[in-house]
Amino acid sequence: MTSTVEVSPAARRSAELEAEITTDPSRFRILTGDRPTGPLHLGHYFGTLQNRVRLQRSGVELGLVIADYQVLTDRDVAEDLQEHVTGLIADYLAAGIDPDEAMIFTHSAVAALNQLLLPFLSLVTVPELQRNPTVKDEISHSRQSGVSGLMFTYPAHQAADILFCKANLVPVGSDQLPHLELTRTIARRFNDRYGPVFPEPEALLSAAPLLLGTDGAKMSKSRGNAIMLRSSTEDTARLIRGAKTDAQRHITYEPRSRPEVASLVLLGALCSDRDPVEFAESIGRGGAAVLKAEVTEAVNARFAPMRARRAELAADPAYLHRVLRQGNTRANRRAEATLAEVREAMGTDYEASR
Amino acid sequence: MTSTVEVSPAARRSAELEAEITTDPSRFRILTGDRPTGPLHLGHYFGTLQNRVRLQRSGVELGLVIADYQVLTDRDVAEDLQEHVTGLIADYLAAGIDPDEAMIFTHSAVAALNQLLLPFLSLVTVPELQRNPTVKDEISHSRQSGVSGLMFTYPAHQAADILFCKANLVPVGSDQLPHLELTRTIARRFNDRYGPVFPEPEALLSAAPLLLGTDGAKMSKSRGNAIMLRSSTEDTARLIRGAKTDAQRHITYEPRSRPEVASLVLLGALCSDRDPVEFAESIGRGGAAVLKAEVTEAVNARFAPMRARRAELAADPAYLHRVLRQGNTRANRRAEATLAEVREAMGTDYEASR
Repeated sequence: MTSTVEVSPAARRSAELEAEITTDPSRFRILTGDRPTGPLHLGHYFGTLQNRVRLQRSGVELGLVIADYQVLTDRDVAEDLQEHVTGLIADYLAAGIDPDEAMIFTHSAVAALNQLLLPFLSLVTVPELQRNPTVKDEISHSRQSGVSGLMFTYPAHQAADILFCKANLVPVGSDQLPHLELTRTIARRFNDRYGPVFPEPEALLSAAPLLLGTDGAKMSKSRGNAIMLRSSTEDTARLIRGAKTDAQRHITYEPRSRPEVASLVLLGALCSDRDPVEFAESIGRGGAAVLKAEVTEAVNARFAPMRARRAELAADPAYLHRVLRQGNTRANRRAEATLAEVREAMGTDYEASR
Repeated sequence: MTSTVEVSPAARRSAELEAEITTDPSRFRILTGDRPTGPLHLGHYFGTLQNRVRLQRSGVELGLVIADYQVLTDRDVAEDLQEHVTGLIADYLAAGIDPDEAMIFTHSAVAALNQLLLPFLSLVTVPELQRNPTVKDEISHSRQSGVSGLMFTYPAHQAADILFCKANLVPVGSDQLPHLELTRTIARRFNDRYGPVFPEPEALLSAAPLLLGTDGAKMSKSRGNAIMLRSSTEDTARLIRGAKTDAQRHITYEPRSRPEVASLVLLGALCSDRDPVEFAESIGRGGAAVLKAEVTEAVNARFAPMRARRAELAADPAYLHRVLRQGNTRANRRAEATLAEVREAMGTDYEASR
């Protein structure tokens, strides 16, 4: 066996797409988004948000769905929904998303988008829904009785979120490729049956850097192990000071054998736009204390302007609501236009047709 | 065991409801409807349509949903959808439904109604959906792979159809009681969780007379064994002439032992507002030929005015479309008002709340 790095077809296609974005960004429309479960952390920033800002600045049209119906079943989250939604918008804008370019909207505000769920559900079978990894995961983690009809039909909602605005590009991690596959299937089946209305959206693979939480586990809002985009410099320092490391004094970048140290190194490197190996070498035998001090400084320096901007935004909820209203208005206009096409294709525009 | 007739709690409650309708019809809002699969036959007329006209004339508010999304998976039907929808409206109006009083609308035209599907799906589990008799039936009749996501979630659509206009009464046959139960469950769970928005609709049991098709099987559009509301006098005569009877010359009304003859007797009796036993006695030893002639005359006499009216309506599709447009406009207004309440109760009216 030779040791050439294998490039998956999806990765190869993504590289082609990136080149096409550079030459003709106006051909692309991206739909992506988040569930409003709380403020975004640095894992989100370096994993997806930074990439979205880059794509928007390259001239690609960007839609950001705040998937509020997907948190309905989580009672704790649902109670702070208003706060989570405005907080998410503040995070987006602070990170550099331009609200006049991007369409930021809440899923629950767009009735015509939600209606697409019905024709879409007619195009998929129960076993196809069951095979979706998120649904499968949910079924195996909860008792069967705990899976709601909403969770079960989640892949079709996702298809509606993507297809209502005819997005043709969806940034995903490689683990999310099967999600997009069912959206592509729905688009293809609709077009085959009723005529060409929808694009078959392609995956734009983005390699999310592996940032662990400060306890060495997956970074997660609920574990309290995550540095938030909006965290204060003090909270950032405190979290990193308490981060898990190991007993070796010499700092290196070895993600497999030293995951906690490597994650701190990576975070410092990402924040200072340096290579992680080089960042580790610059610490050398300084040990965990120096590493933590350097990473804290790098994080706080990198995010200082965003955090200042975010504080301003958070102090002006009326503005954030205006941004949302504008996005929701645009999303409704888009969804109604698509639904009109869908009705025409399906022959359900009875009143108009004579 | 004594031989008293047992009255089910549902039947007892329905009798109470009928009395309440007589004293205060304005308290009641009924939602009912049909799948647009073709013209209505006399089984539909005597089973449901006549009852709807009676209820509307008593002063109860009536909503009639044309459940067009429920025929999506039936390719043959879907191709004639436009014709089936206008035909159904013509049947309704010919039978006496007042389009200025009743709200006649197509399911696919009301986005805000369809959006209710999402919160409603969050309130039911997968096993609850599976237990619905229609869904169960569909799963056992088709191969599992043939059940679409749309069919699987059918009980939640039905809840949306009923609850979007806050109907508090649904006319059903006793076999349909479990359908309504899930709608009641959804309404109750929504109210418990988010605050009182929906009524818990009650069943109004209506005993549909057992009219068989002319071949002795269940009356069905697709078997060609049904006399349509719109059939010509000639077609009616031809169908009844070819109807299955039995070898006994003496005509009696014995549904159990002589189902085909009893069905003809019943049809004749219903059309001439007579008791079936008395109708049978009036034929006596006249045999099948006299029975068929009498039934044909009764049907044609009874339906002549409706059929004339229906022909006029069918010749004016622009009017039927106006009726539908008016109904769809009313349904959308109603659905948007309900959705606004739902958003407020759920705390998803982010823009409005500051």
